[in-house]
Amino acid sequence: MDKYTIGIDFGTESGRAVVVRVRDGAELGSAVHHYADGVIDERLPGSDKPLPPEWALQNPDDYIATFQNAVPAALRESGIDPADVIGVGIDFTACTMLPVKADGTPLSRLPEWRDNPHAWVKLWKHHAAQPEADQINATAREMGRGWLERYGGKISSEWFFSKVLQILNEAPEIYHAADRMLEAADWVVWQLCGQETRNTCTAGYKAIYQDGTYPDKEYLAALHPELVTVVEDKMSTELAPLGGRAGDLTEEAAGWMGLQPGIAVAVANVDAHVTVPAARVVEPGRMVMIMGTSTCHMVLDDSLQEVPGMCGVVDGGIIPGMYGYEAGQSGVGDIFAWFVDNAVPPEYHEAAKAAGLDLHAYLEAEAAKQKPGEHGLLALDWWNGNRSVLVDVDLSGLLVGATLATKAPDIYRALIESTAYGTRVIIEAFETSGVPITELVAAGGLPEKNKLLMQIYADVTGREFRIIGSTQGPALGSAMHAAVAAGAYPDIQAAAQSMGKIKDEVFRPIPENMAVYDKLYAEYVTLHDYFGRGENDVMKRLRAIRNRARGID
Amino acid sequence: MDKYTIGIDFGTESGRAVVVRVRDGAELGSAVHHYADGVIDERLPGSDKPLPPEWALQNPDDYIATFQNAVPAALRESGIDPADVIGVGIDFTACTMLPVKADGTPLSRLPEWRDNPHAWVKLWKHHAAQPEADQINATAREMGRGWLERYGGKISSEWFFSKVLQILNEAPEIYHAADRMLEAADWVVWQLCGQETRNTCTAGYKAIYQDGTYPDKEYLAALHPELVTVVEDKMSTELAPLGGRAGDLTEEAAGWMGLQPGIAVAVANVDAHVTVPAARVVEPGRMVMIMGTSTCHMVLDDSLQEVPGMCGVVDGGIIPGMYGYEAGQSGVGDIFAWFVDNAVPPEYHEAAKAAGLDLHAYLEAEAAKQKPGEHGLLALDWWNGNRSVLVDVDLSGLLVGATLATKAPDIYRALIESTAYGTRVIIEAFETSGVPITELVAAGGLPEKNKLLMQIYADVTGREFRIIGSTQGPALGSAMHAAVAAGAYPDIQAAAQSMGKIKDEVFRPIPENMAVYDKLYAEYVTLHDYFGRGENDVMKRLRAIRNRARGID
Repeated sequence: MDKYTIGIDFGTESGRAVVVRVRDGAELGSAVHHYADGVIDERLPGSDKPLPPEWALQNPDDYIATFQNAVPAALRESGIDPADVIGVGIDFTACTMLPVKADGTPLSRLPEWRDNPHAWVKLWKHHAAQPEADQINATAREMGRGWLERYGGKISSEWFFSKVLQILNEAPEIYHAADRMLEAADWVVWQLCGQETRNTCTAGYKAIYQDGTYPDKEYLAALHPELVTVVEDKMSTELAPLGGRAGDLTEEAAGWMGLQPGIAVAVANVDAHVTVPAARVVEPGRMVMIMGTSTCHMVLDDSLQEVPGMCGVVDGGIIPGMYGYEAGQSGVGDIFAWFVDNAVPPEYHEAAKAAGLDLHAYLEAEAAKQKPGEHGLLALDWWNGNRSVLVDVDLSGLLVGATLATKAPDIYRALIESTAYGTRVIIEAFETSGVPITELVAAGGLPEKNKLLMQIYADVTGREFRIIGSTQGPALGSAMHAAVAAGAYPDIQAAAQSMGKIKDEVFRPIPENMAVYDKLYAEYVTLHDYFGRGENDVMKRLRAIRNRARGID
Repeated sequence: MDKYTIGIDFGTESGRAVVVRVRDGAELGSAVHHYADGVIDERLPGSDKPLPPEWALQNPDDYIATFQNAVPAALRESGIDPADVIGVGIDFTACTMLPVKADGTPLSRLPEWRDNPHAWVKLWKHHAAQPEADQINATAREMGRGWLERYGGKISSEWFFSKVLQILNEAPEIYHAADRMLEAADWVVWQLCGQETRNTCTAGYKAIYQDGTYPDKEYLAALHPELVTVVEDKMSTELAPLGGRAGDLTEEAAGWMGLQPGIAVAVANVDAHVTVPAARVVEPGRMVMIMGTSTCHMVLDDSLQEVPGMCGVVDGGIIPGMYGYEAGQSGVGDIFAWFVDNAVPPEYHEAAKAAGLDLHAYLEAEAAKQKPGEHGLLALDWWNGNRSVLVDVDLSGLLVGATLATKAPDIYRALIESTAYGTRVIIEAFETSGVPITELVAAGGLPEKNKLLMQIYADVTGREFRIIGSTQGPALGSAMHAAVAAGAYPDIQAAAQSMGKIKDEVFRPIPENMAVYDKLYAEYVTLHDYFGRGENDVMKRLRAIRNRARGID
């Protein structure tokens, strides 16, 4: 008799539940719940007071509502008997964190704290903790803390200690009222099984857990005297491995979802990371790229290397027993969307409409008619800064080679190519550091729709490029972890073998294209280093001039 | 009793006649004649045989038709008595040249040569003589001919000897059949007064007439053995000064136009150059910029200096008795038009329509709301290569500073600014070489419509910027030269004082804008030199890769 698990993927605007057959990973039903309060970036629910710029909050009750709405709907669609569900797993955006009481009650639920923005969930894209991140980085450099290099030399304003320190600085009363501070990923798992756990993934990538320890007390004291005991007071040094069983589903949570109490609840995971085994990648050498508005690059390796400009490397951060490397390109689909929204003249909009295509697809078809190099353009893909390997948000986009004959499909193709060059820089940083990359696997919304992009990436990187076999990779990965937690598979490797999915179609590098792209990539690297490594900091000076003109300091 | 002169401006697509009052330059009537054969770039009139790429010809009979149609119409509109017209002057595009018989008959009129494209007028933008220009330049460098530096180190494929040599190479029978080779400017004057003259302007700027002589025989022999005697056989070493009287109007030509025979016919002139006194500029220090698709910069000085990257410097080339300097930006209005046609999304087209503005005007209004530097962008204005000071057609456009928040008006403003930076580079080249520039005067189609552009140029260059007082500057200038030729004024300086026009409105540099633009200009210069002076020839390599991809060698 078939058994099933449920994977729940908590995104930025909504949560998605998918019912998966344990035997083969078949996805039998799915449903989406849109968060009632969505991204809270203007004012708190029920309040008129505007939030400061760069804030992005969420309401934790929207996560509970996702269990209550999306899971039953997905079960209905699947047609299975809920009694055959043996486990539940979740993945989440990260670092998305919140302050709670000792029993798990979010401070934002309590009348006395409800009006304080710091009581709410700080979403991953809450960017108001930059001063704290700056202090964290400067202090780590001054005190020579080696863990900084595990994160490309820079801790992000998005990450756990930046956000915690912002709470302590701006709202000490919230800091004091919070018995626990934790990732929303771990909090929803707590709500399901009644037990607090901390997963290795977010601890490692977002909370600077390295070599068995968080940042030391001397360092924390240098940040803020009260932070010295944050780990023992409000966090936990016991980490739970991915694929582990966090606990058993409680009566209450089973009631939310229409499931049997007592089934397995898997340790929490992160959306990008859980996608790796969902694409059946559980071994070194194959880089999984989650390509959407931005790209996350995930690589496994047996050895710990310092790869310049990585987002992070974490022991057991993706698959237990292996080092999980993460790199990133901060603008990919976002850049193409910017172009389509801001720089394409009406004739192409009309032609796309007449052809019954969306504008991306139309431009892709036009751009696909060209040979590599035919447009004469080269771009630096930094419209949203550069994450890996330069780790510099103040870099900006560049286009060179424009003539009076340059047309929209030319630029569109040049932008796709620029993101492929950016990926090649990352691949070369891995390989130079002793982490081999032999094959690429794409996941996320972008590759599915854009075969030209897939071929260009294969040609530019000189590597075969394949696509995950599911459009719901994160939820599938969470369901796989639930299957491991339920004991249906001995480990995630085995689950990936049976439940993970990769398409048969392979995009292979074409030698004559590779030859041209090798030349263009050499030009890209020259400009990348000239503008990105301090030879000409014009991008930073333009930004400073811009900020002064806008009255921003 | 008032007297009048007529100025006739021969453009690329049409000729325009303007009736001007000698006393004060009042423009009393004007008319345009569109050339029946226009620009001949696909096939000869009455032929099916396609012309090769880069060719651009004209039919000289279209010029005669301009006399026959535009002048009578302008006279009718003016309401004056044609008997009160005391002179006629013309200006022309250059180098626009043709082969004729000894009596002035164009070879293209003769049945035996009519089918040969080389028998027709080669228009200024005929670009098929590049191999000849390359040979002219290489030979001049090898033989150390000093005149090359008077032209920024490069003779253009558009110019006289390039075109003559192409005829000799490709159609020696036409070369042999031609008794004379001359500028269309001089040819139409010949048709009016029955006497061949050669004006100092085209001789100097287009036919390498320097220090009283054309290129020497040894040099000409090195280009082609038969070219040795071209000057004595088919040209003339007697030059006629601008404002001089070429001769008296013939009976036949008077009949074409409805004028009295015997009145003065002025020596020919060139459209850009004749505009200088029309803007009442007859002294050193004030740079006249004729701004349209491209920009011509005209400067007078008492001394001869070698200014790097100039198009040319000619003794008496603009005003008799002074050195006339010409510089150029190869893309200005063309770049803005490219942007508006190729990179502005539908929402701006619709908003412009709703506001009852053309898209340029709408974008200008939006861009004018910004402070300098606020968009965070910087461009290199090389969409059509760079004329002055780099003299390099293989350079291309660059935009840096783009983010996901960049909008069309931001880029539009950055493009305007980039052309202003390009002008400042030219001004600084003049000043560094000992030719001062204290004030700017704009003519042409662009400044009239774009006050933001005027202010940006004032702010970027730190100089006051004014606009010519006529929208028909070239024809007005030609009418002024006709007045001098007729003896109504002793010289063009006096005519300019009474007949030239400049608007009262002055665009003054705003100190706080200048301060920001000084910073941005410094960044422009760094990129200008990096990409334009050989430090990184990526633009040339991109073009070479592009050409190979397109199968062009």
